Amino acid sequence: MPQPHQTMAAVTPDGVTVKGLDLVDDLIGAVPFTDMVHLEITGHLPAPGARAALDAVLVALTEHGTTATAVAVRLTDLGAPGALQGAVAAGLLGAGDRFLGALDGAARLLQEWPDDAEPDAHARRLAEEARSRRDRLPGLGHPVHTEGDPRTARLFAVADAAGLDPAPRERFLLLQHHAERAANRTLPVNVDGASAVLLTAAGIPWQVCRGIALVARAAGLVGHLWDEHRAPAAQAMLDAADAAAPYRAPEATK
Amino acid sequence: MPQPHQTMAAVTPDGVTVKGLDLVDDLIGAVPFTDMVHLEITGHLPAPGARAALDAVLVALTEHGTTATAVAVRLTDLGAPGALQGAVAAGLLGAGDRFLGALDGAARLLQEWPDDAEPDAHARRLAEEARSRRDRLPGLGHPVHTEGDPRTARLFAVADAAGLDPAPRERFLLLQHHAERAANRTLPVNVDGASAVLLTAAGIPWQVCRGIALVARAAGLVGHLWDEHRAPAAQAMLDAADAAAPYRAPEATK
Amino acid sequence: MPQPHQTMAAVTPDGVTVKGLDLVDDLIGAVPFTDMVHLEITGHLPAPGARAALDAVLVALTEHGTTATAVAVRLTDLGAPGALQGAVAAGLLGAGDRFLGALDGAARLLQEWPDDAEPDAHARRLAEEARSRRDRLPGLGHPVHTEGDPRTARLFAVADAAGLDPAPRERFLLLQHHAERAANRTLPVNVDGASAVLLTAAGIPWQVCRGIALVARAAGLVGHLWDEHRAPAAQAMLDAADAAAPYRAPEATK
Amino acid sequence: MPQPHQTMAAVTPDGVTVKGLDLVDDLIGAVPFTDMVHLEITGHLPAPGARAALDAVLVALTEHGTTATAVAVRLTDLGAPGALQGAVAAGLLGAGDRFLGALDGAARLLQEWPDDAEPDAHARRLAEEARSRRDRLPGLGHPVHTEGDPRTARLFAVADAAGLDPAPRERFLLLQHHAERAANRTLPVNVDGASAVLLTAAGIPWQVCRGIALVARAAGLVGHLWDEHRAPAAQAMLDAADAAAPYRAPEATK
Repeated sequence: MPQPHQTMAAVTPDGVTVKGLDLVDDLIGAVPFTDMVHLEITGHLPAPGARAALDAVLVALTEHGTTATAVAVRLTDLGAPGALQGAVAAGLLGAGDRFLGALDGAARLLQEWPDDAEPDAHARRLAEEARSRRDRLPGLGHPVHTEGDPRTARLFAVADAAGLDPAPRERFLLLQHHAERAANRTLPVNVDGASAVLLTAAGIPWQVCRGIALVARAAGLVGHLWDEHRAPAAQAMLDAADAAAPYRAPEATK
Repeated sequence: MPQPHQTMAAVTPDGVTVKGLDLVDDLIGAVPFTDMVHLEITGHLPAPGARAALDAVLVALTEHGTTATAVAVRLTDLGAPGALQGAVAAGLLGAGDRFLGALDGAARLLQEWPDDAEPDAHARRLAEEARSRRDRLPGLGHPVHTEGDPRTARLFAVADAAGLDPAPRERFLLLQHHAERAANRTLPVNVDGASAVLLTAAGIPWQVCRGIALVARAAGLVGHLWDEHRAPAAQAMLDAADAAAPYRAPEATK
Repeated sequence: MPQPHQTMAAVTPDGVTVKGLDLVDDLIGAVPFTDMVHLEITGHLPAPGARAALDAVLVALTEHGTTATAVAVRLTDLGAPGALQGAVAAGLLGAGDRFLGALDGAARLLQEWPDDAEPDAHARRLAEEARSRRDRLPGLGHPVHTEGDPRTARLFAVADAAGLDPAPRERFLLLQHHAERAANRTLPVNVDGASAVLLTAAGIPWQVCRGIALVARAAGLVGHLWDEHRAPAAQAMLDAADAAAPYRAPEATK
Repeated sequence: MPQPHQTMAAVTPDGVTVKGLDLVDDLIGAVPFTDMVHLEITGHLPAPGARAALDAVLVALTEHGTTATAVAVRLTDLGAPGALQGAVAAGLLGAGDRFLGALDGAARLLQEWPDDAEPDAHARRLAEEARSRRDRLPGLGHPVHTEGDPRTARLFAVADAAGLDPAPRERFLLLQHHAERAANRTLPVNVDGASAVLLTAAGIPWQVCRGIALVARAAGLVGHLWDEHRAPAAQAMLDAADAAAPYRAPEATK
């Protein structure tokens, strides 16, 4: 077992080294925040294509209106005003398997794709396996954007313009094709699927794709929190939630 | 500065010592959980009166219907099913200054009460100071239980039956009297005020009273979470919250 | 689909109904907190045996010294003093699959045990399946209490004294037997396994067993937090953690 | 009271509007993530100078080695592997008053600076008031970077290059001057003070400056989490923390 260590940063009285780079000389004022996100995760600064992909995904995942996480942030602030970090944390806690599992799930399929497999046959097998366990392939379909997620085409256009490797997208479209055949209905690629394609092409490991989404959501949740401070809506949201599910006595209180 | 140490527990291969007691011989199967809560905080097992007070406060603070914290728990579970600890944590994060600040605030007033002060004059001064900074004394009034918090009389009856020191209650009633005079309206002692009285009489430091409430709320939130699993209501709550505060374009997007 | 509803509590201006009982008349001052925990989860007050089991499990799981969760609580308080709920939440977030997964995992095995199966054969099959996927059965073995978890025998003694159904324990000991044979080494029943036995006998659904543990841990974490306030150790812990894993430059910073 | 509303986003089946802009046409692939952060908080895209300031602050605050928050993330992952959002949330919970309070505190001083005050006299008054309540002005001094925070000069150079309003910096240097005179020792402007200067010049309200820091820290904590997955250090950190503060029996267990 190697000696325990960390590879993130060394802090001395007169400097900070981050992943082998000098925070002051190489990073602050020299690179955009997106590059710093990339550096923290991969250990190196991004090539222009990877930066474009990461920017597009971060922008796409920042905001989606009154989500469960946005409401949780406002309700937490209602009870614990001032503890900004607590409200943001409460919001992030809801960014779990149901909302973000599709992102890393789709990225995992793409990153564990065997290079020697016949692509169409592999995609068909994955689609059929999912169907046989009454599951669905991640990154397809959307409860609101039923006719197609408007973010997807744009993300793919960014990938083209940035000159990213087209293989992940081709593979994901094969998955979509076989999933639609198996389900006998339209299953548009959603923002999670498209983000998985771009992050894979940009070299982000699937295990940490959810982390990218958390950074984006943190920004979105800070936005909702500040919106709440200027135009309070949490009490109205709480009252409506309360009314939407009234008390009913449990059936047996033996 | 003393050598850094902790006074909670020592764990060895064949035993666990908690606050000087043997977990196996002295605690498991020997004392109720309420005693364990008391031991963890004060370092000793409670006398019967303190146990009765602690039980009554814990029971009173466990459940209050569809609160902001209960909704946050359900919404978090919606996005991150299975991560029970995440949902409970999200709920506890809203148990902050607005909902629980009154508890430790009231306990602090009682525990910092100068023994040599003339009680009535001291209470009047506190009420007037609060009024002059447009603040209210903690533990008085309630948005729903406007005619009086039904839990208060019961908690005070428990204190009497348990033979607790009556001084904290007498002092708090003086505070109520002067707060009502200053505001020229009825300000019933709420559950936070009554809990502060009982916990003070039971010897719980004010700095940790909120911690007692967090234990009680943790139990309540686990209850809501399990209720959600059997009869899902989170999506209906979310839809209602969304509809209650529709999007309006910000005024200036310069 | 049934009309969305919740079965926890109704709050009116002059009363609170919890699970069909009156909070003021039936619960505060009338039942210990442990009963309230039981009521919140099962919808009814416990029989004496179930109360004894629940008390014993809650007491056993409250405290285990300087665990990862206890350190997280202290470190969080170091950066965010005063936000008690944030520190407790941070601690609970670490009470996840590795530490508490064994509890609900073991309870699930017991509660999904087919009544018509031959017990020994079923236990052997479970042990062999776990072994074949290089997994281990939950609730067995302990990194510190290698010769046997001292809490286990005591918990089982409580179950006997309380007259609980012996079937869950018998089944779990069969599991232990076959797990030990398959592994060819001693695998003592640990506190998670014993707690799963008691909670199963007490009628607590496996899906919510982790919630019981979270209530107990919340009390323990409040204890550590208050200990930290009186005898600060977090900075010393942080310095030691920092020194234990020094910076090493990542291998490739292309 | 205005009708409850939110100004963040509208989601329809075929589009997403964010703060009056079209997410697909105006934002994804069109602006860097830093602009999106700015939009979420202020309601409009940043001018080049504000973007440069925001980028520099975000980059400066992302990483600072083995901080309390980084250790909390690793310890949480140890107990709850896989729940990435829980570990990041646990880390953010420690980004509170002690570490980030200086950021919004310093920004508040700058943003509430009365335009009609004589600057030197106002700064002296603030420094003396802080000293008289045995407090210190936020944004000055650093426990490790005792001779001067290396990030400060770089952040100020970015502000110059970006053509930001110099007034906030001039005012903050007056505060530093009078704080040093009152304390009779060197108090270098730290990264929080310098960030407060840049964010103020960039038009970010002080109430939400901590939110900017949380976005940066989220990225840093995701980095630590992924580092932990590749080179586990949490157990070594925990063992060291445990050893650094051994058990000592509490003095009175009456």
